[in-house]
Amino acid sequence: MKVLVTGFDPFGGEPVNPAFEAVKLLPRTTAGADVDILEIPTVFHKSIEAVVKRAEEMCADRILMVGQAGGRFEITVERVGINVDDARIPDNEGNRPVDVPIDPDGPAAYFATLPVKAMTERIRSRGIPAKVSNTAGTFVCNHVLYGVLNAAAKKGLPVKAGFIHVPYLPEQAAGKDSVPSMSAVTIAAALEAAVEAMATTGEDVKVSGGREH
Amino acid sequence: MKVLVTGFDPFGGEPVNPAFEAVKLLPRTTAGADVDILEIPTVFHKSIEAVVKRAEEMCADRILMVGQAGGRFEITVERVGINVDDARIPDNEGNRPVDVPIDPDGPAAYFATLPVKAMTERIRSRGIPAKVSNTAGTFVCNHVLYGVLNAAAKKGLPVKAGFIHVPYLPEQAAGKDSVPSMSAVTIAAALEAAVEAMATTGEDVKVSGGREH
Amino acid sequence: MKVLVTGFDPFGGEPVNPAFEAVKLLPRTTAGADVDILEIPTVFHKSIEAVVKRAEEMCADRILMVGQAGGRFEITVERVGINVDDARIPDNEGNRPVDVPIDPDGPAAYFATLPVKAMTERIRSRGIPAKVSNTAGTFVCNHVLYGVLNAAAKKGLPVKAGFIHVPYLPEQAAGKDSVPSMSAVTIAAALEAAVEAMATTGEDVKVSGGREH
Amino acid sequence: MKVLVTGFDPFGGEPVNPAFEAVKLLPRTTAGADVDILEIPTVFHKSIEAVVKRAEEMCADRILMVGQAGGRFEITVERVGINVDDARIPDNEGNRPVDVPIDPDGPAAYFATLPVKAMTERIRSRGIPAKVSNTAGTFVCNHVLYGVLNAAAKKGLPVKAGFIHVPYLPEQAAGKDSVPSMSAVTIAAALEAAVEAMATTGEDVKVSGGREH
Repeated sequence: MKVLVTGFDPFGGEPVNPAFEAVKLLPRTTAGADVDILEIPTVFHKSIEAVVKRAEEMCADRILMVGQAGGRFEITVERVGINVDDARIPDNEGNRPVDVPIDPDGPAAYFATLPVKAMTERIRSRGIPAKVSNTAGTFVCNHVLYGVLNAAAKKGLPVKAGFIHVPYLPEQAAGKDSVPSMSAVTIAAALEAAVEAMATTGEDVKVSGGREH
Repeated sequence: MKVLVTGFDPFGGEPVNPAFEAVKLLPRTTAGADVDILEIPTVFHKSIEAVVKRAEEMCADRILMVGQAGGRFEITVERVGINVDDARIPDNEGNRPVDVPIDPDGPAAYFATLPVKAMTERIRSRGIPAKVSNTAGTFVCNHVLYGVLNAAAKKGLPVKAGFIHVPYLPEQAAGKDSVPSMSAVTIAAALEAAVEAMATTGEDVKVSGGREH
Repeated sequence: MKVLVTGFDPFGGEPVNPAFEAVKLLPRTTAGADVDILEIPTVFHKSIEAVVKRAEEMCADRILMVGQAGGRFEITVERVGINVDDARIPDNEGNRPVDVPIDPDGPAAYFATLPVKAMTERIRSRGIPAKVSNTAGTFVCNHVLYGVLNAAAKKGLPVKAGFIHVPYLPEQAAGKDSVPSMSAVTIAAALEAAVEAMATTGEDVKVSGGREH
Repeated sequence: MKVLVTGFDPFGGEPVNPAFEAVKLLPRTTAGADVDILEIPTVFHKSIEAVVKRAEEMCADRILMVGQAGGRFEITVERVGINVDDARIPDNEGNRPVDVPIDPDGPAAYFATLPVKAMTERIRSRGIPAKVSNTAGTFVCNHVLYGVLNAAAKKGLPVKAGFIHVPYLPEQAAGKDSVPSMSAVTIAAALEAAVEAMATTGEDVKVSGGREH
């Protein structure tokens, strides 16, 4: 099994992106799967293209995309990507779309095709805070999740794909007031657990990971 | 114009639901529109049926569904409903579906057809905290939003529909530790502003209401 | 019984101060006590002088000082004032002391002499979120609490005094991201309940209002 | 210079206490100072006795006490201990005092005699979130801070003492919903930075670490 794990470059004025800082620490083999990593630009559309290109080149069976969720407490495994860009801040090339569909011909949403519950459970079993999230936002993170699932569906690729959001690093939180953080080593351990679950789980487990709102 | 505004009955052990407590305070005419109100059960599927039945009876042009989001700070106008039930707690008839589609033949999601940005702006212009939300959760609130939009799409009804989540009332927060709350009078003023925006806005305004995650 | 209730003027760039907005709504007689109100400047030392001057003029038996605690969820009744000024932002006359004692000859702290537990319980019994706080900060709120208790102790005045912090108003929260708020009417109801408890309680009730940190 | 660093044993149903988990990781020599460590019981009065006994035995020049602050985001350096026990939960021997003075003959409060600002700055300079706190609560943490400062004052000991609160470990947060955490390694690095600042700072630096409330 071949797994592609991507992480964004820094954006929004941050000097680092905890996503790629942690991705860099991943072992290249996990649970029998070959793991390839890739830093992708925090740019609308170019991010999708970068993931799809590499996934096709390496014939990836699984794609795990990772992004920063500044302000979140836990590792969050995303359930769904929606067909809209609505940017509060510009991306790294100055694009700031507002209420524009990612693909005007695409469906309203795609559910992640990775086993989100099994991944979440596996991370928590390692003593690391994790939960399922029902929104990846409306910026480049949601964009690349939706876009890669859309490309896989349209091209009929057998790949399964999903997204994990990670908190700020302590060094990022040190300059802010009372925001949660997680060390790169802890985040990397969570990602490794997620890759294990991705590589070894067939159908997802049926455990509640829902929320009232 | 005929507007239906619904609010759920209490659930999750709460003695009241701020949604219907506020809905009850709405004037019956707002910005030239006739406003009808309805309390609906916090029950999977029955909630959808109740809304659709009343909307058809009264030939509603607009449907605004309102629910409690305990822990949220603001009035939140929901952007999207997704095709999944994943209940952390049972509904009011003991149902607790986990990762079950609302409609196995339905699309992954529907975007609300009400002008969510205009509604949010109008509420804030009254000095009431409000923002767009990109997840209505996976419980009965998301269920009824998805279900009503799905019914409208399948039946070809010309109605536009959407959902607003509201915080706890002060009396609910008084028994908890450090949770935000909003008075029923303030929530009702927000809902009245939202109904005004629904009744008077054609195409939604293009202002950013997005989030990075 | 004569009660003086004070509220600060706006500071920190806010157009209003929820403290005095609510204080203005108080009835002039509560539980048999005469209530006098006073707006005081958010200025080190001048605030203390203003309270002490009015309290002496009216021969106040009780003093309740009220201030804004932007970001707090509940009405918080302060337990203690400490002998230090440490200003993150300037006061309304540009003073910004850092680690300066309020009174170089005063003790490290004074406990409020009002019945903080009875006041907190009374507010919560009205369905309004409230709790005891163990810090009034290090800005003008803590300053006036310490300073008035210090003046009363040094002059041997029989007056009892304390401080209540209140959340932002909804109109203040509407321009911020996810901060708690409370309407002026709800805050005023809380203050009225507190004045009732002040006017009718002898020794404070022994109920836990503590925190681990 | 001889430094004593103490950490509490687990309490409140937690299997571990992040304080002592991190203290255990400290090097025994830092910035030329000898560091001795001690686990102390989360018990009123016995905790004070344990610290004072060891400090006298080793002729400690500095005492840094460390405790868990579940729910806090940062390393927090405490400014002050107040003369009251008000326990929301029982200590590890079942004591639950409510509004009882720690020392009926003691002053209302003691300011920590360690350089709290220099310690906070040093921790943040290592990229670890930290700030000054103006309340150590009313449980055993505040109790031991007040009690040790009180004993030092009454006995005329030349020792300087203070307290640091630390967040939950990730493994503790993994079983809760959206609480901040910090790894033991990161906490230990923060404590080491604090010990360095304690060992090398004469008079504290004058930088603002204050709060409005």
